[in-house]
This record gives sequence, structure tokens and C-alpha cells, in this order.
Amino acid sequence: MRIDGMMEKLVSLCKRRGFVFQGSEIYGGIGGVWHYGPLGVEMKKAIKDLWWKTFVTKCPDIVGIEGAILMNPQVWSASGHIESFTDPLVECKQCHARYRADHMKEGKFVGDKAKEADQCPVCGSKEMTEARNFNLMFKTFLGPVENEANITYLRPETAQAMFTDFKLVLESSRQKIPFGIAQIGKAFRNEITTGDFFFRSREFEMGEIEYFVKPGEDEEVFDEWFGRWKQFYLDLGVDKTKLREREHAKDALAHYSKRTVDIEYEFPFGWSELAGVANRTDYDLSQHEKFSGKEMKYFDEETGKKYTPYVIEPTMGIERIMLVLLVDGYSESDGTDGRESGEVVLRLDPRIAPMQVGVFPLVKKGKLPEIAQKIYRDLLNEGVRAFYDETGSVGRRYRRQDEIGTPWCITVDFESLEDNKVTVRERDSMRQERVEIDNLINYIVEKI
Amino acid sequence: MRIDGMMEKLVSLCKRRGFVFQGSEIYGGIGGVWHYGPLGVEMKKAIKDLWWKTFVTKCPDIVGIEGAILMNPQVWSASGHIESFTDPLVECKQCHARYRADHMKEGKFVGDKAKEADQCPVCGSKEMTEARNFNLMFKTFLGPVENEANITYLRPETAQAMFTDFKLVLESSRQKIPFGIAQIGKAFRNEITTGDFFFRSREFEMGEIEYFVKPGEDEEVFDEWFGRWKQFYLDLGVDKTKLREREHAKDALAHYSKRTVDIEYEFPFGWSELAGVANRTDYDLSQHEKFSGKEMKYFDEETGKKYTPYVIEPTMGIERIMLVLLVDGYSESDGTDGRESGEVVLRLDPRIAPMQVGVFPLVKKGKLPEIAQKIYRDLLNEGVRAFYDETGSVGRRYRRQDEIGTPWCITVDFESLEDNKVTVRERDSMRQERVEIDNLINYIVEKI
Repeated sequence: MRIDGMMEKLVSLCKRRGFVFQGSEIYGGIGGVWHYGPLGVEMKKAIKDLWWKTFVTKCPDIVGIEGAILMNPQVWSASGHIESFTDPLVECKQCHARYRADHMKEGKFVGDKAKEADQCPVCGSKEMTEARNFNLMFKTFLGPVENEANITYLRPETAQAMFTDFKLVLESSRQKIPFGIAQIGKAFRNEITTGDFFFRSREFEMGEIEYFVKPGEDEEVFDEWFGRWKQFYLDLGVDKTKLREREHAKDALAHYSKRTVDIEYEFPFGWSELAGVANRTDYDLSQHEKFSGKEMKYFDEETGKKYTPYVIEPTMGIERIMLVLLVDGYSESDGTDGRESGEVVLRLDPRIAPMQVGVFPLVKKGKLPEIAQKIYRDLLNEGVRAFYDETGSVGRRYRRQDEIGTPWCITVDFESLEDNKVTVRERDSMRQERVEIDNLINYIVEKI
Repeated sequence: MRIDGMMEKLVSLCKRRGFVFQGSEIYGGIGGVWHYGPLGVEMKKAIKDLWWKTFVTKCPDIVGIEGAILMNPQVWSASGHIESFTDPLVECKQCHARYRADHMKEGKFVGDKAKEADQCPVCGSKEMTEARNFNLMFKTFLGPVENEANITYLRPETAQAMFTDFKLVLESSRQKIPFGIAQIGKAFRNEITTGDFFFRSREFEMGEIEYFVKPGEDEEVFDEWFGRWKQFYLDLGVDKTKLREREHAKDALAHYSKRTVDIEYEFPFGWSELAGVANRTDYDLSQHEKFSGKEMKYFDEETGKKYTPYVIEPTMGIERIMLVLLVDGYSESDGTDGRESGEVVLRLDPRIAPMQVGVFPLVKKGKLPEIAQKIYRDLLNEGVRAFYDETGSVGRRYRRQDEIGTPWCITVDFESLEDNKVTVRERDSMRQERVEIDNLINYIVEKI
């Protein structure tokens, strides 16, 4: 179902309910940087925990690491980022607005003032500078002297630490090829243009795996990882008709890649990249061997021979998982499902819903709040994300929880005093069930 | 018990077993930046999860956020960091080595070449420059032009986002004072001198709470938080005789603080700061009100009056929690406890041990590995951090797990084929118990 003005509604909901705020909002923001509020941080943490559990904890052939945002600048010479991690930048000579030349060529700037490419979308001038390569890495200086020798960069991807530390991990973990190194962490790209809410940000978090294989086995492992990667979204309930695969054209591949396939989602602002799998071949390990002078080969005990492994890299943007779940889960009632027309329900998987249970006493006074508070505390102590609410009508409290995606609401009513049971109401079906208080924690924990 | 050369042994163990690596090691490192290997990342993640569960999930009066590393530079003007977040830097005119003047004055550089202060500890020269204030914030540029207008900084503390977003959080979360905002995240300080393994790093992670209270209630809340903060270490088993409190002298307080008390631990390299609690008064909110022009006051519904809250700030270094647990847990057998003299046991709390269970088949062949593998997979699927090992004698496998702090080892032996039980051996007591395979997961999960 198409919802008019959906992104605007979602942005507003996200701010009002504490999912996502503009970074440094009181100072008018800072371009392309976002903060995650009380609900957003819980959802993001739950996504990261699920990712880690799925791809690290449960996988005997994958180990995690945490590399640093600041790396020795030689890493970026070896990786090719200093030379090649650039976007073509053009500037309007009239109003000095800056754009990505490739976005203009693709006609992404369309509207009244920009009917043609090479025409400034802000002021309409045709006087644009020649495109120059702008490096997207944020630069900084290590130590007290700001000179060339002390320049380093904020990492634009987490991948490199998994290559530089390949041998350290191999030796300490006793893994054998094939195996993978996984990482979740922040990366930074000084994007020329940002936008589409927090879709294209300058500071963001990635979940990446570098999976090391014997050359020749790379293509099969690529396909396998592509399947597992897509399955992660499907398991979270993302509408499969809105997912598609996009193979990068041979002449548009990144400098390190033999093959890249993206997973795209049909956002209200168009089909856009969620995740991807790349075949990085032996490019990175070979480059680091060359630049560092340290051998990066693998000794195969079975054959007694050494080789430089190939690397399959599945990668996801953590905030993009969050955005797709918010967009895909956003729904408005048409008034035929027992809700009033226009009421918002965020259909989030219970594992990643920022609040998993709402707890309400039917009334604010007397014994009911006491019982509800006890249930609430017991849930918190169990590690369940719960919210206590005693204000307004129960119907209104349901709506508040529906809007933030809380899968279950528990109401303590006068009958509870008699039968020691509470009403548990499910978000999507709105079905209600009476559950014994003594059995409530188990009931909820099992459902999650 | 004092262990000779303990830090050197720990550094070596941490590298060999995959807790901590030097950042960008193959390129000779990058000063004061560390990577966390397969075991280190699990331990760090477990510490962060425990922290979050203790201080956010379980606390109805605390909500989390995730602010950004890149903030609008006006934040750092308002907070006083641009002006005051400096260390006094001196440089040797002879060899150009750089030091913190205050460290030299305190006599921290002692040794053959530096018997007196103001004498270069590297070359012995007495020709040092005058101290100048060096700002510890890492600088970078937002957008394609490197000029004054586009300078921003990597945050040197996570606190500021909790002040700038105070009203956004208040409005979206429906909290009332007193309440707290919590955050875990990376911060960066361009330290002049780094060292003591990963104790003083340039890139590190903090867990901070800003707890907002009515002025006048700040001192009582300060004491309460100090107690809760210290308890976190005690609950993790840290030796309480090695913890002490250090009150900052009035004339040495940070520019925003009315009172600061640190929690220190007696490391092999001396008493050093683990954590602290500061009374930041209404300094930050008032400054942001002044600099942003946005009101940062709280409307008290009970009295109908507005006021600027006071803020109590408990803060911890996440890696410092990790380092103290490694140091405090490190032990070597004296040979009287059934272990051989010198055998290393890392006594880590099961909740934060990187591996919680080792699973061994007594022998590599036949049916035992099959049963052990099934137990191993069942544990992984339950989210338990487990390690499978079938190489070497069982005694040797125990030692490998003792050294990394694994609390339990499960051995599948020939008897298991008869009685459907396995041996569970506990790390510290080395007690062994026979446990039914069918009940094993519950047995382990309950112990954790």
C-alpha cells in the first residue's frame, strides 16, 4: 500500500517519539549526521545484537574483531583509498553550490530549475566548474603538529582492519580457511551530498564480514553469502517484493572488486542500496603484503603450500537495516481492521522492537498500579525492554505503543485482583488473551 | 599476590590469545590506538551489554541515546573544550621529543636520563621550550573545503550530546526529573603521551550517564551514584583492597565541575583512574542555552516553576573496565592447588568471560566428537559463547581455557556413551561434576 507523504510522516514520528534526532539540532544541525534517541538506540542495539548473534556467536567459522577508526595512513595507501576513494565534484560558479557530477549526469537533480544536466539545481546557472576528484575520507592529525607526516584519516570502511590483522587473528584463533572475520563499527565518509533522512550520512555504522577462501572457491562462496545476507532481511519480515538484486556493471566495479551485487529496497525515495556482497579477490592482502613487507599468505597444511586467500565481503549498513525496518513496518489503518482510519502501526519484529512490552494498570489509583509496577520491574530484570504507562485511556495507550511498534501490551484490570490474570494484547492482530501473572514472564520471553 | 613482570606477561597473553593487538601492527602501529581481537571483542561487548542492562534496561529512570562523534563545532565552544581542553606541551630543543609539562613536574619521567624535572628523558638535554597549551581534540573538516569555517572535532567525551539533546529526550521519553540519559560510545583525545598498554589511548570507549536533578538535591544524588558506580566493579569480583577513592582538589577541578571523585585501581604501574563521578552543576545546560539561544530549562509541574537542572555525571572507561578485570583476574598457580607452578588462570566473571564454555571430546575419533559437536552447536544456538577443542590432551585443553578465563569445560568421554552424562569442570575450584546431557544447556545457562 502506498502511503502519501510517508517519509515526512516517518521523520516526524522518529523525532516526536525519540527514534532519530538531527545531530547537534540546537545549533541548526551538522550536515549528514544523526543522533539516535531513547527508542532509536534500543532498536539499533537490538539490530546489532541480532546481527552479531546470527553471524558471529552462532557461527563456528567466524570470529569478531574491533578495529580502530584511526589507522596508520599507510593502510589507506595500500588499500587504494587515498588514490581512488573519490567522487567527482562540480561547483556552480554563480552560487557556489557543490554537487556530485555523476549525480547530475544521471539526472538525479530534476525539477523546475534543473531540467537539464550541467545546470545548477539551486540557481539555474549553466556555469559549472570542471569536475575534480574529491577524496571522501575525513582527514585529521595525530599528535601536536599539523603537517603532512602526521595526517591520518577516519576510516571510510571497517574492512581494512580485518585485512591488516589477518595473520594476528589466524594465529590467535586457530581458525583454518575457509573462515571469516566480522566487525561492527562506525565509518565516516565526507559525502558531497547527503540526504533521504538518515539514508546517506557522513557518520554511520557498518556490519561487515571478510570471508577468506581458497582461490577458485570464491565464486561459490559468493553465492552462498549472498543468500545468507538476503535471508537476514527476510527473517526480519521485510516485504520480499520490495527487495531486488543489482549486479554492478564490469566497468563500474570498485577498484578492488571482481564482482559486486547489491541488495536494494524500494524506499519511497526510490530503489536504494541496503547491503552488498563483493568479491575482493586477493587484492587487499596482496597490497598490504607489498606495502608493509609482511607476508600475508596462508599456509595450507593439507597441501603443504602457501597461497594468498581470496576474500568474499558481505556488508550491511546498520542504520540502513533500521531505516528499512521502519519504512517497511510503517502502516496506517484503513479503518476496516478495528482501528480508526489513519492510526499508525509500526510492524516491527519483536526481537528488534525498541519496546517489547507495554504495561498498564487500568486505573491510576488503588492496587492495580502496584501489581502493574511489579510486573514491569520483573520484566526489566529479565532484560525485557518494557514501558510503564498509566496515563490516558487504555485505548490511547495502545495507540502510543502501536505507533512505536511494541508487540504486546499487558493490562492489569479489576478482574486481575480476582483471578490473578492479566490481559495480553497483540499489536498486529489486536487479539487479547488472559494470562496467569505467575506465568507471564515465561509467556513473554518465549514469544520473543 | 605480587606477580613479577605481570604487565609484560599480560600484554603477551593478550596478543597471543587474541584479546588485544596493537592498532595497524603490520605498519609499525599508530600511537595509542588498539584493536580488540576475537576474544577481546567478545569480552568488551559483554562488558558493554552488562553495563547497558545494569544502568539502562533495568532502570525506569534512565534512557539511552547514541550521539555522534562529529558535532557542530559550536558545541565545543559552549562546553568550554575549545578554550580549556588542553594539556601543557613542552618540547626538547635538542631531540624534539614532546612531553606533558605537568607530567615532568610531577616527576613521572624518572630513570637514568631524567633524574630531575625539566630535563629531556630521551636525550638528557636541559633545553626545553616553554610550555604551551595544546588542545587535545582531533580536528577535521566537514565538506570539501579545508577552511576555518568547516573545522569540526572528534568528540573528546560523549557527554555533550546528552546536554544538547536534553529537551528532545525529555519531550519524547516523557521522563520527569530526576532522570538520567546514558550513552556508550567512542571518544578521541590527541594525548601527548600514551602508554601503560591500552590504559591511556587516543581512541577509546566510554560509558557515561548524565543524571538531571533539581538544584539542591545534587549532593545527595552524587553520593548515591558514587556508591552504585563502585558497586559495578565489586559485583564483577574486583579486589576491593585495590580500589580507592580520590577526591579532586578544589583548585584542580575541571572547568565545569563543583566536585569530582575518581575510583582508582592499583595497577602494576601504580594507582590509576578507572572511573569518576562529577557534579557538573548547571554549567553545560546554561552554556548551551547561552550559545544556542534555545531554552534548556525544565518546567516543574508540581511547583509550576522553571529551573535549569543540575547534572551528576558518573563516567567509566569501557576499556579500563576490561583492563582492570584482566589485571585483577590474572593469577599464576604456586603449585599447591593441583595445578603446576606458574600455570595461568584468568579469573573472570562468567558474564564477561570471552568464552563461557569449552567443549571437548576425550578423543578425536569415533562417536565422541559427534556428541561434543552437537552440544557445542546447541550452546551456540542458545547464545552461549563456546569453544570447541579436540587437539592435545584434555589437561592441555583445560590449561588453554584457564588462560583465557573460560569458567566451565565440558568433556564427552566413553562413559558418556553409557550414561548420557558429561563431565563439567569448573575453572577456579577445578571441581568436576557429571551432568545429564539432556539437562546440560539449562545447567550452563542458569550458572551464567
